[in-house]
Amino acid sequence: MGQVTKVGVLTSGGDAPGMNAAVRAVVRAAIFNKLKVVGIKQGYHGMIQDRMEPMTSKSVSNIIHQGGTILKSARSEGFRTPEGRKKAFENLKKSGVDGLVVIGGDGTFTGARIFSQEYNIPIVGIPGTIDNDLFGTDYTIGYDTALNTVVQAVDKIRDTASAHSRLFFIEVMGRDAGFLALRSGIASGAEAILVPEIDTDFKQLYTFLEKGFNKDKSSSIVLVAEGEKISGGAIHVAERVQKEYPDYDTRVTILGHIQRGGSPTAFDRVTASRMGVSAIEALVDDQKSIMIGLVNKEITHIPFNQALKNKKKLNPSLVELTSILSI
Amino acid sequence: MGQVTKVGVLTSGGDAPGMNAAVRAVVRAAIFNKLKVVGIKQGYHGMIQDRMEPMTSKSVSNIIHQGGTILKSARSEGFRTPEGRKKAFENLKKSGVDGLVVIGGDGTFTGARIFSQEYNIPIVGIPGTIDNDLFGTDYTIGYDTALNTVVQAVDKIRDTASAHSRLFFIEVMGRDAGFLALRSGIASGAEAILVPEIDTDFKQLYTFLEKGFNKDKSSSIVLVAEGEKISGGAIHVAERVQKEYPDYDTRVTILGHIQRGGSPTAFDRVTASRMGVSAIEALVDDQKSIMIGLVNKEITHIPFNQALKNKKKLNPSLVELTSILSI
Amino acid sequence: MGQVTKVGVLTSGGDAPGMNAAVRAVVRAAIFNKLKVVGIKQGYHGMIQDRMEPMTSKSVSNIIHQGGTILKSARSEGFRTPEGRKKAFENLKKSGVDGLVVIGGDGTFTGARIFSQEYNIPIVGIPGTIDNDLFGTDYTIGYDTALNTVVQAVDKIRDTASAHSRLFFIEVMGRDAGFLALRSGIASGAEAILVPEIDTDFKQLYTFLEKGFNKDKSSSIVLVAEGEKISGGAIHVAERVQKEYPDYDTRVTILGHIQRGGSPTAFDRVTASRMGVSAIEALVDDQKSIMIGLVNKEITHIPFNQALKNKKKLNPSLVELTSILSI
Amino acid sequence: MGQVTKVGVLTSGGDAPGMNAAVRAVVRAAIFNKLKVVGIKQGYHGMIQDRMEPMTSKSVSNIIHQGGTILKSARSEGFRTPEGRKKAFENLKKSGVDGLVVIGGDGTFTGARIFSQEYNIPIVGIPGTIDNDLFGTDYTIGYDTALNTVVQAVDKIRDTASAHSRLFFIEVMGRDAGFLALRSGIASGAEAILVPEIDTDFKQLYTFLEKGFNKDKSSSIVLVAEGEKISGGAIHVAERVQKEYPDYDTRVTILGHIQRGGSPTAFDRVTASRMGVSAIEALVDDQKSIMIGLVNKEITHIPFNQALKNKKKLNPSLVELTSILSI
Repeated sequence: MGQVTKVGVLTSGGDAPGMNAAVRAVVRAAIFNKLKVVGIKQGYHGMIQDRMEPMTSKSVSNIIHQGGTILKSARSEGFRTPEGRKKAFENLKKSGVDGLVVIGGDGTFTGARIFSQEYNIPIVGIPGTIDNDLFGTDYTIGYDTALNTVVQAVDKIRDTASAHSRLFFIEVMGRDAGFLALRSGIASGAEAILVPEIDTDFKQLYTFLEKGFNKDKSSSIVLVAEGEKISGGAIHVAERVQKEYPDYDTRVTILGHIQRGGSPTAFDRVTASRMGVSAIEALVDDQKSIMIGLVNKEITHIPFNQALKNKKKLNPSLVELTSILSI
Repeated sequence: MGQVTKVGVLTSGGDAPGMNAAVRAVVRAAIFNKLKVVGIKQGYHGMIQDRMEPMTSKSVSNIIHQGGTILKSARSEGFRTPEGRKKAFENLKKSGVDGLVVIGGDGTFTGARIFSQEYNIPIVGIPGTIDNDLFGTDYTIGYDTALNTVVQAVDKIRDTASAHSRLFFIEVMGRDAGFLALRSGIASGAEAILVPEIDTDFKQLYTFLEKGFNKDKSSSIVLVAEGEKISGGAIHVAERVQKEYPDYDTRVTILGHIQRGGSPTAFDRVTASRMGVSAIEALVDDQKSIMIGLVNKEITHIPFNQALKNKKKLNPSLVELTSILSI
Repeated sequence: MGQVTKVGVLTSGGDAPGMNAAVRAVVRAAIFNKLKVVGIKQGYHGMIQDRMEPMTSKSVSNIIHQGGTILKSARSEGFRTPEGRKKAFENLKKSGVDGLVVIGGDGTFTGARIFSQEYNIPIVGIPGTIDNDLFGTDYTIGYDTALNTVVQAVDKIRDTASAHSRLFFIEVMGRDAGFLALRSGIASGAEAILVPEIDTDFKQLYTFLEKGFNKDKSSSIVLVAEGEKISGGAIHVAERVQKEYPDYDTRVTILGHIQRGGSPTAFDRVTASRMGVSAIEALVDDQKSIMIGLVNKEITHIPFNQALKNKKKLNPSLVELTSILSI
Repeated sequence: MGQVTKVGVLTSGGDAPGMNAAVRAVVRAAIFNKLKVVGIKQGYHGMIQDRMEPMTSKSVSNIIHQGGTILKSARSEGFRTPEGRKKAFENLKKSGVDGLVVIGGDGTFTGARIFSQEYNIPIVGIPGTIDNDLFGTDYTIGYDTALNTVVQAVDKIRDTASAHSRLFFIEVMGRDAGFLALRSGIASGAEAILVPEIDTDFKQLYTFLEKGFNKDKSSSIVLVAEGEKISGGAIHVAERVQKEYPDYDTRVTILGHIQRGGSPTAFDRVTASRMGVSAIEALVDDQKSIMIGLVNKEITHIPFNQALKNKKKLNPSLVELTSILSI
């Protein structure tokens, strides 16, 4: 392994707004550093299928504001097999690609770590997922945009919440992590927030909702992460509450993939731009098997290994905040 | 019944963006025409409970852009009874209110027609509902805003639709009417649109979806009105399709009350403003038991009776359009 | 001139949101009608430069929601000359293009009319301009989006308008026509609206503004069309008012090209889709030298000649509305 | 000075989105901590005029998402005089207010520091300004929202930028600080960014613009902070460039007060909520003459004195980023 001369960039896993801004930064920083750069379509799947194309500064014009990813994303069963990874490496070799930037979440980095070890190819990861559940970075690309998408949706629901005894249950993404639910709940003034990390205490929820209605609150909004453990998501939580309080008028909204799309926010674009440039600089500086992070506003490097084996925790001061603000 | 001197204005039924713009126009046009004007809170319910307050030009400052309704809306069981309506009339009489403007949908106008007959009080209706299902007007207040809300949501989902064989089912409002689903489906480029007026032909839907996937479409979006008859909404349609095609990756979004909120569009604000002014002018011109309509860009009057007993039909040329545009 | 077999489509003049939705509809309707279809880049300029490319259903995937125009637009000095038009025609002939759909404003249709006469080629126009100043159609593509852009901008300014005696002058597009200023002014609750069609009466404006400040209005917003005649736009109007009232705090916003961009509204997309399909149907039906219009919700045809020689007028009932609503 | 029992809260200086979220948090945290709380209207001006009203949890319902400030803001000449401050203090005393939370920028804190010294009243400041120019905090409330407002405006302009040799100059706020221009410029992919901190090098700008046009860039966007020193803002920069390159088509947009309005982003709402709660906790903990900051994601306290006498600097790594990304 010598100096990197030609970089491949790919996006993998669930889409996250800002991935395009990261791709743009990777491509332009590569060119700025006199490296060649190719885009690999559909993540590891495309690497196996040899779907690569040279990228120029112009290839990434006018994409900074676009949701989704111009490189497309895909899951790849093949890359979980030694044969698949062998084929992938042969394709890289054929194309002269001797360094990779992979943009995605923990699945993406797990694959990257194994591949890097097997074939001694330097790989740098950029965290792109709306869940913000990656250890080693304060923010992942897409999280801020998804937060704003949820908040704008809840704002609209609140506009309509003039009827008495109405309860809205809004399901947001997050199978294992409640970051999105917690922070969007605070930002939208939700009355209660149910996350995977904390088992729902229905007794407490009932007390709380009753108190709200006795205070003549016109309505209450409950944010439910899809990974809520006790009932298993908003529809089931709503059914349970409805059974307990037949007079309440309960309504369910499931935001679904809306949260993965949309034009990225300023914050996600700047973060993606900084991370993209830093990923190339890390390759130039002979780094490998690391994820770029943003910690305390500064760019950091963290080994894939650390990022994967540690678990990021909810900020307890934010959890506490909700009980103060929803009085 | 002589000349109207003091007008009561209320909003009733489901919230619709633009109701505030209509209230503002009613209040200011009343003042412009030297009438007194009071706001009645929570619709007919508040009329029975005597929740009225005098309105000035300033009471309606800075509300034209707000979703929801400052007068709040509510359902009223009481107003369905002769006793409730008697109480309501006594409250109006006590306050000197001798004319009403009611903003809402067909439930609102049904109540208004009976009340007007029983107590000989002139009432003018303004169509406010996101469903656009009222006969006698091309557009109801809130419809254009809801359309844009749905379209923006579908745009975000499309951003993320890069994976192969993915099927999105998005449920939009419309228990009995498919206007919202049809028009937002065209505007968002949906691959298929399921409405209450047309029984879903699953065979045809399957053929269509298969064709799309064979063409290597990266994903397909199906808009489902909540009143879809055969399966009963998006979740059940998705389950049925999933059973037929276990390999497809199906996802469901339920927009719910998001569609009733949000800042009204320019179109809804202008329509609401025109209708509000016209409602007052109609009262000044001794009209009663009519709904204000917007037909071919001009303000019209239609008797409540006609508005209620006729059913608005989907525009067949729009139905046809979808088959041309989704090829 | 026989039956059309291959259609060329272009966009010309100033960008308008929704042009892409129209291009998509033209392409897909052509294919639906078994016609071949090519996209001509950069309007008439590209026709002279022979910049054409075949279009398929897939070429127009995922563009319905995009602002701008994938075909790009340009002004063409060459097309004003017989030589330029000769070259353009030769290029069309070479490519086998025997019918055109041109999307733009009056400059676009003027060129189309002359070209159609000279070379006996059928041309159908689609009105695309944010100014809505074309005779023969109630709405032009882009107008509704631009309206909402202006209204959202004014909403934000109103949020901040808590200081006393503050006057905001906001310049919107419209060199010769005040449609955008008038309708967005009504929708945003502007205190005064200055349009090219009506000479600004500064005396009346002063009286009005004084009245507002005496009523303790926290601020006033004046929409100024860039074609305002007496002072020549918002900066000069503001200077004049400032000189008269040195104590007022006057601020100017110039929206500029923001108004030409953005994702098109539902209304503009549906209108564009209908017009695009209708343009192809008109060509199939042997029509030429006509503009597609939307009049009273129905598609109409109007000769270029009529569209060009008549002038659309401001709706007097909307002009009157502002004086009622700003009391 | 003993334990605080009754808190007054006010907003002062230019509006910033998120101020309402901060007011809500201050009020609810005060109630949570068993303190009484009053809202002071129109900043220091209202303190002198005795415009105070008791606040309850309900007073701040449904304001978290609203732009502007429900307490209104105003400049106060009176508070610069000893007599004015004496009157203000007497009013506070009369009402029993023995602690203050002031939300605003450096002008606000300068007044607070003097007032606190003169009358020994504990005051805690919350940084609320779109300029983000306060030393001692990474982010001020309103900055993130303003960034997104600018970015969305530039996105729309870019949509329309298909013509060749077109140059857009967009003026954003920032009389003395370029934070808003720099970060929004990176996020919107602007070709050049002119800030007050760095003298504009027109030679370099010309070289850069020429290079862009030679590369057949369809257009270029230059962000200009209003405090740009050499020419004095976007209109003058545009005139200068136009004179040098008469063939370029230059256009100017002045965003103005649009940047101060709009519904706050998730980030601004969460920051405002945290700061509001922390401000009350600081008062309860006997703190005075401090500004609440957010540094490295944690709440900090900084003496007014330090916040006022130090100057925050542009992040040099962001300045450098633009030269890499605009190649």
